[in-house]
Amino acid sequence: MPTTALPAELIARFAAITGERYALTDASAVAPYLVETRGIYHGTTPLVLRPASTGEISEILRLASATGTAIVPQGGNTGHVAGQIPREGASDVVLSLSRLNRIRDVDPIGNLIVAEAGCVLAEIQKAAEAVDRLFPLSLGSEGTCQIGGNLSSNAGGTAVLAYGNARQLCLGLEVVLPTGEVWDGLRRLKKDNTGYDLRDLFIGAEGTLGVITAAVLKLVPRPAGHEVAFAGLRSVADALAVFELASQRCGAALTGFELMPRIGVEFASRHIAGVRDPLQTRHDWYVLIDVSTSASAEAARQMIEALLQEALEKELVQDAVIAASGEQRRALWHMRESLSLAQRPEGGSIKHDVSVPVSRIPAFMAEADEAVSAMIPGVRICAFGHMGDGNIHYNLSQPVGADKQAFLDRWKDVSTVVHGIVRRFDGSISAEHGIGQLKRDELAEIRAPIEIDLMRRIKHAFDPAGIMNPGKVLRTGP
Amino acid sequence: MPTTALPAELIARFAAITGERYALTDASAVAPYLVETRGIYHGTTPLVLRPASTGEISEILRLASATGTAIVPQGGNTGHVAGQIPREGASDVVLSLSRLNRIRDVDPIGNLIVAEAGCVLAEIQKAAEAVDRLFPLSLGSEGTCQIGGNLSSNAGGTAVLAYGNARQLCLGLEVVLPTGEVWDGLRRLKKDNTGYDLRDLFIGAEGTLGVITAAVLKLVPRPAGHEVAFAGLRSVADALAVFELASQRCGAALTGFELMPRIGVEFASRHIAGVRDPLQTRHDWYVLIDVSTSASAEAARQMIEALLQEALEKELVQDAVIAASGEQRRALWHMRESLSLAQRPEGGSIKHDVSVPVSRIPAFMAEADEAVSAMIPGVRICAFGHMGDGNIHYNLSQPVGADKQAFLDRWKDVSTVVHGIVRRFDGSISAEHGIGQLKRDELAEIRAPIEIDLMRRIKHAFDPAGIMNPGKVLRTGP
Repeated sequence: MPTTALPAELIARFAAITGERYALTDASAVAPYLVETRGIYHGTTPLVLRPASTGEISEILRLASATGTAIVPQGGNTGHVAGQIPREGASDVVLSLSRLNRIRDVDPIGNLIVAEAGCVLAEIQKAAEAVDRLFPLSLGSEGTCQIGGNLSSNAGGTAVLAYGNARQLCLGLEVVLPTGEVWDGLRRLKKDNTGYDLRDLFIGAEGTLGVITAAVLKLVPRPAGHEVAFAGLRSVADALAVFELASQRCGAALTGFELMPRIGVEFASRHIAGVRDPLQTRHDWYVLIDVSTSASAEAARQMIEALLQEALEKELVQDAVIAASGEQRRALWHMRESLSLAQRPEGGSIKHDVSVPVSRIPAFMAEADEAVSAMIPGVRICAFGHMGDGNIHYNLSQPVGADKQAFLDRWKDVSTVVHGIVRRFDGSISAEHGIGQLKRDELAEIRAPIEIDLMRRIKHAFDPAGIMNPGKVLRTGP
Repeated sequence: MPTTALPAELIARFAAITGERYALTDASAVAPYLVETRGIYHGTTPLVLRPASTGEISEILRLASATGTAIVPQGGNTGHVAGQIPREGASDVVLSLSRLNRIRDVDPIGNLIVAEAGCVLAEIQKAAEAVDRLFPLSLGSEGTCQIGGNLSSNAGGTAVLAYGNARQLCLGLEVVLPTGEVWDGLRRLKKDNTGYDLRDLFIGAEGTLGVITAAVLKLVPRPAGHEVAFAGLRSVADALAVFELASQRCGAALTGFELMPRIGVEFASRHIAGVRDPLQTRHDWYVLIDVSTSASAEAARQMIEALLQEALEKELVQDAVIAASGEQRRALWHMRESLSLAQRPEGGSIKHDVSVPVSRIPAFMAEADEAVSAMIPGVRICAFGHMGDGNIHYNLSQPVGADKQAFLDRWKDVSTVVHGIVRRFDGSISAEHGIGQLKRDELAEIRAPIEIDLMRRIKHAFDPAGIMNPGKVLRTGP
């Protein structure tokens, strides 16, 4: 399907809003906005707009509404489900938020920061650090992703266990509605029970209900003590028992609990510079335990030592190390965060981002492992992730020596089986990456019609002209 | 306006769903469902239905939709804004949730509990305790209020600082829609990014979008150490400085921070059995500091001692005591929780439930105090509350010897002034009590038209027949 060009006159009217310089039409200039991380979708667009302000976005959406022009908001373009790139063969206009990158305010006493949508996540983390606070949202792409995208996709990451995902870290929003009207919901209040929760409706809506242009974000005190341990164990069931013990002993101080398989540690040691197995002997499974507390550095140290001691005595853990320095802590986290990248040199990888109730992870994994091994003998299961949140990146590397494309061609079949098991375990087929284009049709299949219907009613109520990021989350049309 | 009776034939059809025994029409039987705590509104109803199951509620709403019958869901009937009682002079049918009081499941490993809407909050707390967990939602009416109402009003209370309000403690919902369709959103997942956030739309909607019939609630580990301190200080500004210090030193272990004025302690000591001023000397202001941690009993003790030591050295605190036993901890909390009741014997009380950004509390209080004192010379300001959340119950007791009714007649004038100041401080006119009937018209006045319009669009999309709790949150009609 070829790109339907927009009339030149309409392009000129959009360009007049941002200024010519920030209205890109040249193929090489728009190309970076059309590529998505998985390489599955290939977007097309006649125009990329780079507005500088909420006011310009309001004008753009007003014009888009009047002319029925589809608009695709885009932040750092790091999404995994193609929610941020325009549809292939359509004439969607890309609305880049990257010039709205001002931090409007930092309030350390109120523990909040007001940031525009285009602020890069790492910049917000730095601004928090500068006033001795922590903005806890943290994920692999934090040097590139933007807070508007993080909120629109309700991003998760490695600190969800203690601090929640993007949703829990947001107090208020400024949103431009499809009509161009601006909703100023930039509230700085922890408690405000005055009507329907519009904020949480825009969060996670993947830009289909409006464009988030700014947000009030929560900060927390920086912990006085921070410890990271790495432990080898026999089984996923033991990992669950250690998680339960850690929750009990550390409570809110348990700020991370990640699961890794032996094969993941091998892949990372083999392919990622600077990564090596921190333990002397081999173990089938590993957990990374992150503890931080405002009490004191000693309190954190005592807490993690006591926890490991108890887990060793109960023979839940076979061996463990505690990072002795900030550098060692970063190294352990680096290994965990490189697991995705480390799979690449091993050939094709079929990926799933699923969650199940935490207590059911071992049973889910056992069943899924059996099913995929039966489908593809020799498949190398590299399932890892945020165990404390029930969120497993159930990734499969191709058998050694297999044909990569033939393996990847099984993606849909394998996903159908894995997601079927996930559903029997009352799980989610998208724990943190969202729906976008990739899982849109599957969502429609697995959810009760009433749920899809309620979503469609909301979509229609907010965007009757259907111009906001059409074809994402929900199918277009009636 | 007289009650418009429902046709006897229609009453019989509703009664056939619940059984005659649970369809109340007798004036004395329905009376308790019509009284609200403030005594401002006087509901009327031709019928109170007490269904036993989600299925029965589905049938009731299907019939109500077909016949255009207004339905008012009611839990423990403890709400402060008359959201739960039927309109005066209308023929709203009351739908009592109290027979849906089963705890469906308790999962200590998954840290969750599945409870039906009619479960009394204290019963849920007990069920959590029985498996060595804490359900942190805690408020004065916990022995009566029901979880369905807590969720529908997004209840706050005394543990919001560390654990959030009802919204943050809910993972999933079961909701009967106005059409009678059932949305099974009883998910047990911490992470699930699959479409629009319907859950948070129903939470806080005060029963205007559907009837919450069950919920998956989060549990947390029970703390190993728990300490409560009571400190006397010079000013609200010093209280803020102590809060900031406590946040820094205790982090997530700071589980409560309540502000009380001298007059509140006097009222409570005077009128509430068993309450006495815990300090030897008088102070203008007091704070109650609650610390709990999973680390150990000693860690909590050390934390609160170090905090008070530092606050005393910095002369932010003049004097302080730490509760020496569980009994003393309960006694300190009892004093705080009795402040509302303690105002009654002092005559008329004009109440506000407001929030402002935490850092602006001192300036807000100074301005509000000046304004109300100018309006009513001799007014006794008893402003107290959840300082750590920015939530102040800005209550005013009548001047000594003044005429009670004449004082209460100023409610609207005084509220207009106080809420005006709240808004200039970017605050909320309803921090935790909701909108109901009491603040409905004020909400429409103070919010931008686009925000009210978005709420109306949602209301219409979910409840096109307008049968769900009409006249609450939003005005009825187009």
